[in-house]
Amino acid sequence: MRIQSVVHILGSIIFFLGISMLLPLICAFVYKESDWFGIFLSFLITVSSGLIILILTKMRGEIRAKEGFAIVSFGWLMMSLFGTLPFLLTNSTNSFINAFFETTSGFTTTGASILNDIEVLPKCILLWRSQTQWIGGMGIIVLSLAVLPILGIGGMQLFKAEVPGPTHDKIAPRVGQIAKILWGVYLLISAAEIVLLKIAGMSFFDSICHTFTCMATGGFSTKNSSIGAYNSVYIDAVVAFFMFLAGINFAMHFRALKGSLLCYFKDKEFLFYVGILAAATLYLTGDTYINNYNNIGEAFQKSIFQSVSIGTTTGFVTEDYIKWSYTSQLILFTLMFFGGCAGSTGGGMKIVRILLLIKSGFVELKKSIHPNAVIYVKFGDKSVPNDIISKILAFLLLYIGIFAVTAIIMSFLGLDIVTSIGASAACIGNIGPGLGSVGPAFDYSHIPSLGKCVLVFCMILGRLELYTVLVLFNKRLWKV
Amino acid sequence: MRIQSVVHILGSIIFFLGISMLLPLICAFVYKESDWFGIFLSFLITVSSGLIILILTKMRGEIRAKEGFAIVSFGWLMMSLFGTLPFLLTNSTNSFINAFFETTSGFTTTGASILNDIEVLPKCILLWRSQTQWIGGMGIIVLSLAVLPILGIGGMQLFKAEVPGPTHDKIAPRVGQIAKILWGVYLLISAAEIVLLKIAGMSFFDSICHTFTCMATGGFSTKNSSIGAYNSVYIDAVVAFFMFLAGINFAMHFRALKGSLLCYFKDKEFLFYVGILAAATLYLTGDTYINNYNNIGEAFQKSIFQSVSIGTTTGFVTEDYIKWSYTSQLILFTLMFFGGCAGSTGGGMKIVRILLLIKSGFVELKKSIHPNAVIYVKFGDKSVPNDIISKILAFLLLYIGIFAVTAIIMSFLGLDIVTSIGASAACIGNIGPGLGSVGPAFDYSHIPSLGKCVLVFCMILGRLELYTVLVLFNKRLWKV
Repeated sequence: MRIQSVVHILGSIIFFLGISMLLPLICAFVYKESDWFGIFLSFLITVSSGLIILILTKMRGEIRAKEGFAIVSFGWLMMSLFGTLPFLLTNSTNSFINAFFETTSGFTTTGASILNDIEVLPKCILLWRSQTQWIGGMGIIVLSLAVLPILGIGGMQLFKAEVPGPTHDKIAPRVGQIAKILWGVYLLISAAEIVLLKIAGMSFFDSICHTFTCMATGGFSTKNSSIGAYNSVYIDAVVAFFMFLAGINFAMHFRALKGSLLCYFKDKEFLFYVGILAAATLYLTGDTYINNYNNIGEAFQKSIFQSVSIGTTTGFVTEDYIKWSYTSQLILFTLMFFGGCAGSTGGGMKIVRILLLIKSGFVELKKSIHPNAVIYVKFGDKSVPNDIISKILAFLLLYIGIFAVTAIIMSFLGLDIVTSIGASAACIGNIGPGLGSVGPAFDYSHIPSLGKCVLVFCMILGRLELYTVLVLFNKRLWKV
Repeated sequence: MRIQSVVHILGSIIFFLGISMLLPLICAFVYKESDWFGIFLSFLITVSSGLIILILTKMRGEIRAKEGFAIVSFGWLMMSLFGTLPFLLTNSTNSFINAFFETTSGFTTTGASILNDIEVLPKCILLWRSQTQWIGGMGIIVLSLAVLPILGIGGMQLFKAEVPGPTHDKIAPRVGQIAKILWGVYLLISAAEIVLLKIAGMSFFDSICHTFTCMATGGFSTKNSSIGAYNSVYIDAVVAFFMFLAGINFAMHFRALKGSLLCYFKDKEFLFYVGILAAATLYLTGDTYINNYNNIGEAFQKSIFQSVSIGTTTGFVTEDYIKWSYTSQLILFTLMFFGGCAGSTGGGMKIVRILLLIKSGFVELKKSIHPNAVIYVKFGDKSVPNDIISKILAFLLLYIGIFAVTAIIMSFLGLDIVTSIGASAACIGNIGPGLGSVGPAFDYSHIPSLGKCVLVFCMILGRLELYTVLVLFNKRLWKV
């Protein structure tokens, strides 16, 4: 492990994180908020920490896969640690662990919150809170489309073939080039959402904040009752549409923007993603029409919003779905595991993995009948090699295993069974609201500190596709 | 598909099932029960149905893998259907679906019951109910050690290598030969348990019934409060020990009986099985000592019994574990998924699969660090081929998928979330008691008929390692 190179890059990440704190600082000045000094201090500490690290270290050799794992994992951790400063120095949270939970929930685009009353916070902190998600979203797009395919994590090399890339040992130039393209797309769609939300009736400030958290499928809101506070069918529609976009592979958006709009419909993952959301919406509409609402229009509006919000792992709410039928809750709970498409900002297991899982199930069935036949799983035109299928299956089971262990730990800390499995699934899947007492009408503040630490670890694990973090616990990685 | 050959063999299965009804008939005479006539009618109908099929059909060609799937799946279904006769003709259940649920639960060695009051039933019916499990257990041992390895289901070919076998197209002679050996072992251990239970203080009749359901890891009892009714540390110990034996690969018992007692400790699956049960017992003892019982001895007695009972998927109870802490319940719930060793009468996913899953997880981690290295999963001295690992991973995910879908269907039928997931896990894992309102103190009678049908399907799916049943839905299987 070339530790000095890793630390050097972490230094530049911290530096740029500090620079990004200028945005809430400007916000504090615009709204003449007394909290500007806390933000200013955070800015100073973060930027200078970054600078000191940059000065004291230098790059020693190329960044290889090994260093990649460390940079990504510690990068997210460092951002989450320095990101607590604005919360702490403006006294917006009552403890470090709460600030750390909130910031990690932001940078991992989870959206789980320990804040009981969001609306009392100063605007500059609300902006910073939303901004952590937007930055996390930027990170995750580049990570999933440029870094993980090279590292070969959890079958993500499937997406490597699209652009010819360098060998394993030279990551930096490739990543930089892809990042520029994708961030352009991310910015463009974000700008469009801000405009449309403003037109739909949101204030300019709220439009920016919600766009930040919507594009990242994060789900932090500036309102205690989330998007439900606006009670507007237009705002619901705009937010649902952009959550839907944010759950799609950003490489597809890039191609679409270059002119080939039909590319979406050739993509099996996209079609499966639409199919799952449509099926869930259909069921929930029928179920909530019978059990909860008086007219089918309202049932549809709430159902499509909640399906897309949970399905893309955003976590905005317009309705307390804990009041819906058990089946509706279990369907939303299942959606928590599916998540968005690969290369989106969405969390969960990723649609492509579910799709390949189902396909490999059918292949196994065929093999049982024709034991000597050689049958491959197809994805698009190509056959998927068996070792990628194994990687994906192992990933899915590891995901379920971590979910189960976390649920058991949560129950150990005194949560009931439904809350335990809800909190575990919502954090590892980077969704935000769960079931039971961490449902949409509640928050995570009542969870004991140890539980918050476990959930923070889960958020990072889930966000970084498990293996990126887990390999760091292998001694051999550190030796070479 | 050589349908006539399949039907012919089904005929002989039905015939022998009829013959086995002589045992409860004798019981009815011994205890001078008026229900003898219902049993006698069942015997007549079953034996003559079997004979008629045997006369009308004949074997046309060898039994191949294709026919194997059909014989196994329809064999279990036919046994469950004809097995309802003694219940129906003695008016022991109030509807066909209840009788069918009870019998399927028997032959699949699940142990879920729709009977509120077991103790009012005549002894001949209690015996028949226990006997269905014992017969199911005999079937399952042969199935898992002789049939499935040849069919190559869910990675079970791992166990094929131990005895050189015939090619795919000739199943019958091999199966017959292995069956004789294994049934000898099964009978011998059963005889030992009857004697020990009698010595421990059970009546002779109860000893036989409980031995039948214990050896099959079925869990039907002759008492409403299961083994808890005896309130005896000796009986608890004997039952726990034999449940533990029944959860071990019967091929190991055969080797041990031939003299090599140490063979257990060379078997990785056995060691892992002991490790899991020991860990669960340790935790439960501590937890229940703090929360439920006054002395550590009682806590240990209840904990080891319940861990072994749920871990081996037997489902006997000495305590209503719904009263234990949420963590204890979740640990038992997790054990429901693990199940017994391959080649045992236990259900669940099987310990060997969990073990190989964990190993393949570590192999994937190593591969992430050394992407070009060729690393295999080891089991004992041998490397496990990648396609077997894929099969196992696909099996585990399919298992979880069926569990999730069943839980959603159950919630749709009006069960609460904890009961839904409890019933689903308990039926697909062939355990018996679940959580919530299908917990150890309750039964399945309140579940709607549609729900009972779904659970019956799950029991058979789980018992026959999923694929054996699912391949039958493939058109191609029927063509050739």
